[in-house]
Order: sequence, then C-alpha cells, then structure tokens
Amino acid sequence: MASFLRTASCARPCISRSIARPSSRIAIPSITAVRHRQMASAAATATISDAVEQPFFPDEPAGPIVKTAIPGPKSIEAIERLSKVFDTRSLNMMTNYEQSFGNYIADLDGNVLLDVYAQIASIPVGYNNPSLLLAARSPEMASAIINRPALGNFPQHDWADILETGILKVAPKGLHQVFTGQSGSDANELAYKAAFMWKRQHQRGGAHVDFSHGEISSSMENQSPGAPQLSILSFKSGFHGRLFGSLSTTRSKPIHKLDIPAFDWPQAPFPLCKYPLDQYAAENAAEEKRCLEETERLIKDWPLPPAAIVIEPIQSEGGDNHASPNFFKGLRELTRKHNILFIVDEVQTGVGATGKFWAHEHWGLTDPPDMVTFSKKAQTAGYYFGNDELRPNRPYRQFNTWMGDPARALLFRAIIQEIERLNLVENTAMVGEYLYSGLERLAQQYPNEVKNLRGKGQGTFLAWDSPRRDEVLKKAKTVGVNVGGSGEKAVRLRPMLIFQKHHADIFLESMEKVFKA
Amino acid sequence: MASFLRTASCARPCISRSIARPSSRIAIPSITAVRHRQMASAAATATISDAVEQPFFPDEPAGPIVKTAIPGPKSIEAIERLSKVFDTRSLNMMTNYEQSFGNYIADLDGNVLLDVYAQIASIPVGYNNPSLLLAARSPEMASAIINRPALGNFPQHDWADILETGILKVAPKGLHQVFTGQSGSDANELAYKAAFMWKRQHQRGGAHVDFSHGEISSSMENQSPGAPQLSILSFKSGFHGRLFGSLSTTRSKPIHKLDIPAFDWPQAPFPLCKYPLDQYAAENAAEEKRCLEETERLIKDWPLPPAAIVIEPIQSEGGDNHASPNFFKGLRELTRKHNILFIVDEVQTGVGATGKFWAHEHWGLTDPPDMVTFSKKAQTAGYYFGNDELRPNRPYRQFNTWMGDPARALLFRAIIQEIERLNLVENTAMVGEYLYSGLERLAQQYPNEVKNLRGKGQGTFLAWDSPRRDEVLKKAKTVGVNVGGSGEKAVRLRPMLIFQKHHADIFLESMEKVFKA
Repeated sequence: MASFLRTASCARPCISRSIARPSSRIAIPSITAVRHRQMASAAATATISDAVEQPFFPDEPAGPIVKTAIPGPKSIEAIERLSKVFDTRSLNMMTNYEQSFGNYIADLDGNVLLDVYAQIASIPVGYNNPSLLLAARSPEMASAIINRPALGNFPQHDWADILETGILKVAPKGLHQVFTGQSGSDANELAYKAAFMWKRQHQRGGAHVDFSHGEISSSMENQSPGAPQLSILSFKSGFHGRLFGSLSTTRSKPIHKLDIPAFDWPQAPFPLCKYPLDQYAAENAAEEKRCLEETERLIKDWPLPPAAIVIEPIQSEGGDNHASPNFFKGLRELTRKHNILFIVDEVQTGVGATGKFWAHEHWGLTDPPDMVTFSKKAQTAGYYFGNDELRPNRPYRQFNTWMGDPARALLFRAIIQEIERLNLVENTAMVGEYLYSGLERLAQQYPNEVKNLRGKGQGTFLAWDSPRRDEVLKKAKTVGVNVGGSGEKAVRLRPMLIFQKHHADIFLESMEKVFKA
Repeated sequence: MASFLRTASCARPCISRSIARPSSRIAIPSITAVRHRQMASAAATATISDAVEQPFFPDEPAGPIVKTAIPGPKSIEAIERLSKVFDTRSLNMMTNYEQSFGNYIADLDGNVLLDVYAQIASIPVGYNNPSLLLAARSPEMASAIINRPALGNFPQHDWADILETGILKVAPKGLHQVFTGQSGSDANELAYKAAFMWKRQHQRGGAHVDFSHGEISSSMENQSPGAPQLSILSFKSGFHGRLFGSLSTTRSKPIHKLDIPAFDWPQAPFPLCKYPLDQYAAENAAEEKRCLEETERLIKDWPLPPAAIVIEPIQSEGGDNHASPNFFKGLRELTRKHNILFIVDEVQTGVGATGKFWAHEHWGLTDPPDMVTFSKKAQTAGYYFGNDELRPNRPYRQFNTWMGDPARALLFRAIIQEIERLNLVENTAMVGEYLYSGLERLAQQYPNEVKNLRGKGQGTFLAWDSPRRDEVLKKAKTVGVNVGGSGEKAVRLRPMLIFQKHHADIFLESMEKVFKA
C-alpha cells in the first residue's frame, strides 16, 4: 500500500486512455460470452498489481465520449414526450441503459459519461454487469418476478436459503436476523416501528403483559396511550427518507419537508467538524463532546421521550458530514445508559462504499448497534437486528403484504457474490486512498475549487465543498463525468465498487479541466 | 347472462373434476411450449360459452390435492429453519412456487390448493403465468432488474413508452398522469403528500407565491406553518397501509396500530349497511346520509383541517364493507364543496377484481376522483391524477431515489396484455355472478354458516360473515381451498382474474364440505 500511495501522490498518473475516444457499440453480452469473460476476469484480478492494473471489465469504454451538449437533440425530444405524463423537472440525464456499461452511463445522443453518482449511490457493480445479468435471467429470478409472495403469510420454500446465502451472509456483526422491506425510507420506518414496540413493551413490564383496554381503544383513535407519545431522535442535516415517519427524522433541506405534516420529534446537533479530521482532532473532539451532551439533554428532557436515535455513519444527502468513531461510541453509550435503541442508517453508506462492507465497522464498537438499516446498493432493503426482543411479541404487528421482494433479494445475493469474486470492498478501500491522494493534490493546486476535502480512509465515499458547486456539476458533464452534489455546496463522489485507479485518473483529469475552465 | 344465472342457481353444478385427483408434476413450461399454448388458448377462449367452458390454462391441475395435514412434515422442517432468521408466526403456508400453477398454490408436502386468497389479493393472472414468464425472461426485464434507475434523475429512455403502453393505458378516466411508487402504503403516502402540498399552495395564494421565511425555518423544526397543522380524513374500519402516515389513516384493527405514534387525524363513520344492499335500500340510504353529515362536520370542525379524504371503494382488510354509489357521489360533492381532495384507494379493489378495471367505475361519477392509488394486482404502485396542480410547483418536492421500479412496471404491462387477451375483467364479472349465485344457495342451505353475503355485482370481490370464521378458514385447507378472512368475522374471496366457473364449482363444493363437517 505504501508504494502505491507514493506513486499516486508524487506524480501525475500516466493515462493511456484518451477521453472521448470512440468505443464500439456496447451490447449486452451473451450468456456464453459472459461465462468466458468471468473466468478470464477472475484470473486477471487474482494478479492485480499496483503497476499494471487489470480492468475488471475489459469491454468497458476506454473513456468518456461527449458528442453533444447534454441534453442533446434526441434527449430533448424524449424529455418532452416524457414530460406529458411524468415529472421531469428533476431530470439529470435521459439515460440509455442498453448502452451503459460498467462505470459508464450513456444517453440517447451517443454521450457516454464516467458515472461517479451511480443512480444516487445505488448501483454497486456496474451497469449491465454480466454476473448480475446471469442472475436476472435465471429461472429463480423469473419465478420471483411473476410469483411475488406475501412473505409473511406464504414465504417461498427457499426463503431461508435466499436470506442465509444473501442478505444474512453479510449481516453486520452481532445482528443475525433481518426484517425485509422495499426502500431505504421503508427500512427506516420499519426499524422505528420495532423501536416503538420494544420501548412500550419495556414500559408495560415485558412481553407477557397484555395491552390494556385503554391502549386498545385509544390506538384506534390515534391517541395515547395506544398511539404513544414517544419519538425518534435524529440529527441536524440527517436524511432518513421521505415517508411521513422517516421525513420527521430527516433534517437535510426545507425542500424535502415543506408543507408536509411532521411529528414533534427532537433533533440533536451533528458535530460541525473541521477537515481533515485528524488535523483538527482536539477541536473536533470538543465539538463532538458538545453534541453528545446536547443529545443526552434531549433524551432526558424532550416532552416525547425517544425510543431510539437514528444516525448515518456519514451524513450523505445533508452534505457529507463526518464525525469520529468516538462520537458514535459515545452515542452507543448514551443509548445504553438511557435504555433506548441505537439505529444506524446505512442506506447510503452500506455495501462497501467506505472500504468496509458496513461503514459502522470503522468505529470499532464492542457493543453493536441495535438495528442497521440498508437499501440502495443492496437493491433490496430492510433492517438487521440481533436482540430477540426486537421481534414484536405477537404476529401481525410488524407486517405488510409483500414484506420485501425475493427478486431483489436474489439480486443482492448476486451482488454479494460479485463483490466477493472481485474483492470489491478491498478494491474500494485501495482506490479510495488513491483517489483521495489525487484530490489532495488538486486541493493544493486549486484551493479555491476544492475546500474541506473529506472522507480520508472511507473508501471512495469522498466529498469536498465548492464555492460554485452547481456550475462544477454542470461543467463536469461537458468533460465526460456524471457527478452529484449533497447539501448546499458539497460535490459528493459515489462511484461504484468497480471504480478502479484508471477511472480515478480519468476523473481527476476531467475535474482539473473543469477547474481550469 | 340470464340463462347462465338460471343454470347456476337452480341446480348443483356438475363437476367432472374430482377433488384430490393426482395431477402430474407441474413444471414451468418452456417458452416454445408457452407460445403454442397461448395461441391454442386464445382460440379457445374466443368461443367460450356458458354450456362448455374452456379453461384458460389447460395445464392447470384438475382440482386440489390434499396429501397431508397442512403444514405437513416437510413444511414443518422448512418453517423451523426459516424461524431462526425470519418471523414465521404469521405464516399460513410454506409455499412451493415452482409447483404452483394458475389458480393453484402448492406446498412442500405435495398439497395443491385452490387459491382464492392469491397472496392477499395480489396475484392477478395466476402462478407461473406463461405470458408473464415471457415478459420476465425478456431482455427489457433483465435490464430493468440489473440497471435500476433513479427515475426522477436518470429515467430510462423508454420510460414514457413503458408508462403509456402499461400503467397509463389503464388509467382511470380523467386521470392521465401518474407518480409511481413501490407499495400500496407508499402510493397512499405519496398521494397524501401531493394533497398537503396542493392545499398549502391554495392557502398561500397559488403556485407563484414563495414560501415564507417562517415556513422555511419552521419546516426544519417539524413545526407549523412549515409542517402544517393539516390532516387526511379517513373512515372507520378503513385500511390504507402501515407506514406512519398511512397507518394514521388506517382504522382496521388495534393490532395494526398499537404502540405506533400517530397523527391526530379525523375518522368519519363508514356506513354500516345491511346486506343485500338492494333489499335494505331505504335503511342503507339513511345510514349513508348520517355518515355523509358526520363527514362534513369533521371536515368543517376538526382542529387540523383535512387536505383530503381517502376511502376504499370496498373496505377490504376492515371486513369487506360496502356502500352504495350514492355515498361515494356524496363524498365527491363534499370534497368539491369544501375544496379538499378526494383520494380513492384502489390498492385492493383495483385491476379487475370487481368486474370493472377500477372499482370506482361502478359509481358512475361524472367528476372523477382527484387521485386514485393502486398496487397489489398491478405488482407496481403509485397514484393517478389529472389536475396539473397536483404536480408540486417545484422539482424535488415529490421525489425519492427510485420513485418506482421499471421492472415491476414492465410486469404490469404484461399483466394488462394478459387481461386484454383473455378478457379477464369481463370474465371476472361473469364468474362473479355465477359464484354469488352459488353462495346465495349455500346461504339458504346453511344460514348459520353464511351470513351477510355481500358483493353482488362486484365481480368475485365477495365476502360473508361466519360465526366461526377462523375455524372455517382452517378447515377449508383440509378440503383443498386456501381462503382468507377480513375484519373480525368475514370470509373474503379474492380469487385471481383467471378464476372460472369450474373453479367456482370446486370452491362451492369444498365450502359445503366444511359447512357439513
């Protein structure tokens, strides 16, 4: 690793691929071709060296292709048509997924961009990934698509097997059970419901204590005690989704919340750390202490006592805000002290992007979180838990018609296999270091463009602040890069796990063009 | 139709199929075989007559097979294994979907039951439907599975086409736009959010009026005016889902609501009608008038004014409660009068089961609902709307990462094609009449078993009250039928749209066995 870093930070990387070199038409490979390629690729990746990096997907475009303004004429026509029936005002690119491959996203006008946004951080192993294509074409997948079960009533006979070889194979340490859902918002709300039921059970005196008549009747009136005066504590700038319960814990931007009724739940301050974190260790520690104290005060004093706190390991939509492992350890201690639950929202950070499978592994907790929620790169969703008390004391309390989706669970299993086959978590840790070093160099060269670079040691989960963020995102497209923002001024990088050093080189060179322009 | 009904009600149907006749192993048919069969089947259905009904799927089992107690030994073993990682306390049958076909659901012990519950009303055209299998194996589906887009930002280039030839092809009259989601709960919450944004926009004075500073800052604190003191009015016994906002409008059973915080939103009484509706027309009209008056009082007086009312055309989870078209017309008038929105929740009633594609078509409204939500049999979800004002005035207000799922939208398109190919809405209307007549006969013969039979003229969306409901559901399995309940005492029928007269015969004969036992 040391020699790798030295190479990366001391010299401009040698780029053998030219940007905008035309590539041949990208076709979805046949299954036979896929098998051959997988074997070849597996052999190649076994001998990766720092000096000569083998691409995971030799068929990937050699570099971006920018043929027209984006949107180009064909895209404009398609957008106009779609606008008649679907809201396109947030549209970023009218995408041609048939022509997208690996790290590259294509549009209708022949533009092919290096994609470090990846469907808002939700594509894990590349567009038209051949291994996923095999899984998608399997008889199991076809059955899961056309015979969608009500999992709580009529689970498929191999559901345990699908869970154990997939979702549960990568369960965070100490959390060996799962309740499956359909999206990140849904996963968080399911976790909140489990937390409320757990808290009320404790308050009632245990699982064996029946609901009172007053609880039963008041619940039907949406009044306490049946609908309890409890809350979920979240953090300023946090994002946990946009359904009514999850939105009440979301504190990212007014546009997410305006005009929507919300629960009167508390928000604690998230540490306003200075970057790089290690250079400001003492100041950041003081700031984190302040936030922990305020969190404890809210736990004790808020009129609707929290049943749980929920937090992202790195606040993502809210601006890529980081804190130290000590802060999160402090939260774990506070929740134990006050007998409430600790929910870690890994919807955006989970599945490898930080260089560990789950971002909270960076904290070195000896006592795991009570629940970890997941979605996005998992392409399915849910919450992991370990404590049997988090299974409500009766059936049909945590229940809905579909309770997840076996088709998406099968896809996550294939994603996990691909991650293992190509060592993608390790790859992301390594490429993240390389990319961070390159960005450090850019920050030195363009101090007015790259401020507060952050995410060191967190894989490719990197960001910086830009004084002209929206302009930078727009210009990035003109040099062949699709990149997103977070918060008010952050440029956030969310490459896929198959992002390699040669992609980092293209990205860095492209951003330099933007900064020079 | 008249002669058909006479036949059905005057004599016990002649059943040529014996229950529990062993059928050959059900295999997923090959694509070639499927094509042949489709052509044969299409030709056959074109000449359906009342006298000799051609089966839609000749490969379907001839009748149920009951080999063991349910669960049998193999199922018990599988349930024990699954219990270690997944909540199985609500498990009804450990299902073998590979062996299920058409209207028949199979388990691991060789039991094959006639399924009139259909994954809680969510399987439209049969297990392992050959046409859906073709769609599931198509390159478009494979791409949609492995390249899941963030639809709001990066829609696929053919998304307009998928919508127009699928979801929007069956849009309710007057509602030509859609916002897509992932489940019934999700669809309802998205509709509620649209309603709140619409109402606040009216209160502010129009789409051009900016948010005030106070709204912006208070929204981030979950306080009004930014998080407005508004509500959604729903009805007693209604069910609209189990996320926090939708659960606040759900009033079905305490077990759905206990221990979960809820908004202080109003519930109006749903008419407690007597059945058959037409025999008690005057009494029912008076009851409906009472409910409309109380609804209006709540709209005017509830401290948190409603932005919308939400109602199911037939209350499903809450006990299969019906009301007349006049009641729903009255609600439409009330919402116009008080400038609030009328949301019709067709999550369970939609997609053909009532003998019309949408159940609200039975009402003969001249002024359509403002929004209609859908899911279940559609296998995708969302809300239809017509008024452009229901598109929020800015992008990113109604938004989330996935905003639906093109894979499931493609499946709905295939379902729609299958419904059209086999005339399944018409079939359901016809078979519903036949089944209702048979149940009327059973109600006469077993008046202590079949009470308050209801759903006449509503396709196969039928139900009755049973004084020993749970026992009846359990015994039904022993005679080869999988049937569900709703509310406290209703037996609810939710057959698929491919349920035919010969299935109705088997069902009626099986229920008679249960009643005699």
